[in-house]
Amino acid sequence: MVDEIKKSVAYKSVEEIENGMVVGIGTGTTAAYMIEALGKRVKEEALSVRCVPTSRASMQLGKEAGLSLVSLNEVSRVDITIDGADEVGPSFNGIKGGGGALLMEKIVSLNSDRVVWIVGEDKMVDQLGSFPLPVEVVRFGHEKLLQEFQALNWSPVLRMNEKKEPYLTDYQNYIIDLELEKKIDPVTIADEIKLMTGVVEHGVFIQEADRVIVGSKEGIEILDRAN
Amino acid sequence: MVDEIKKSVAYKSVEEIENGMVVGIGTGTTAAYMIEALGKRVKEEALSVRCVPTSRASMQLGKEAGLSLVSLNEVSRVDITIDGADEVGPSFNGIKGGGGALLMEKIVSLNSDRVVWIVGEDKMVDQLGSFPLPVEVVRFGHEKLLQEFQALNWSPVLRMNEKKEPYLTDYQNYIIDLELEKKIDPVTIADEIKLMTGVVEHGVFIQEADRVIVGSKEGIEILDRAN
Repeated sequence: MVDEIKKSVAYKSVEEIENGMVVGIGTGTTAAYMIEALGKRVKEEALSVRCVPTSRASMQLGKEAGLSLVSLNEVSRVDITIDGADEVGPSFNGIKGGGGALLMEKIVSLNSDRVVWIVGEDKMVDQLGSFPLPVEVVRFGHEKLLQEFQALNWSPVLRMNEKKEPYLTDYQNYIIDLELEKKIDPVTIADEIKLMTGVVEHGVFIQEADRVIVGSKEGIEILDRAN
Repeated sequence: MVDEIKKSVAYKSVEEIENGMVVGIGTGTTAAYMIEALGKRVKEEALSVRCVPTSRASMQLGKEAGLSLVSLNEVSRVDITIDGADEVGPSFNGIKGGGGALLMEKIVSLNSDRVVWIVGEDKMVDQLGSFPLPVEVVRFGHEKLLQEFQALNWSPVLRMNEKKEPYLTDYQNYIIDLELEKKIDPVTIADEIKLMTGVVEHGVFIQEADRVIVGSKEGIEILDRAN
């Protein structure tokens, strides 16, 4: 989506942040605008919030934006987490991890009272899975895991960095992207993936978002989860 | 168990290793004797075997014993893995990870055609779970995981090293030991544990051993799995 659209949902999302809150700050280009927007509110309104980063990258951006950072272990609970998503399906399931931060994002998300996703309308889909499903795996024996995924016909691809070396997550794991066939719903195989030895976490987020803020050229739409 | 008993099962176990085999070498005090015994056979019989270590410690011991080491990714399959265990129950389920190497041990074990455990009779139990169940977890947000385990009444204890700092596995994760009540069978909660976000792997090994070699003052007993 165009930068202006990313910016619009990002700035919209921080409106609900209140003084004293603990805020989980997501990872990725849209979340980066959210961090910038939150930094502005903190400065202009002398807002006191503590932020839990979901990656080294968002920690760095948070510092630059002048946010007060804390680790998840230091807080009893996160009030709200705002993050991007790679795909959002009906019933608020999503795929995340295109940016490689799915593990920390999921841990922060699960420890948040409220989760808001900010996306462009191109991320809204009828059926998850066109976006490759990222799976974080331990390096040891990952070739065997690639073979297992292949045997299941899940078309695994080991993610590489710009130097053509395996991409490393913040916790020094690899990511295998599964390019699933259309007929396979990632939600239905999520547990099967996680139960495999060597898998640390996958990018399927099941009903974790309470609100999705969707941006388009026409404006902003706010979707709230029913229950 | 007494060192002599550990030594006896270790030396017995390497008898079935044949020329040309790929051998997974376990971790711990009993496995250390096995590595020593295998090193002797390699030297005395000019045996050609390639060994896949299950930890940095067993890699080091393998080197010292003059074994030819390969990584799991370099071999298509492991012919036999020989390892210790912390507890072995009926139907060949076991608990491993007292030595902290459960993740690599499980990955090598699952990629082995044959698995042999070598233990003293004190490790043979009617019901698993007296030995604390080790769970390897990511460092990020581990305090939250401790709270979740506590809420489930699984009495979690973060494993510490001799410096009173959290113990780090070879892959820089933490270990939480669950001191389960007697009425809880680790096998029945194994999947529930693995499905928790932040959990990398647990020490429940379900029907992975094909043979258990049990040592006691009276001698050696060989148990083979029925199916």
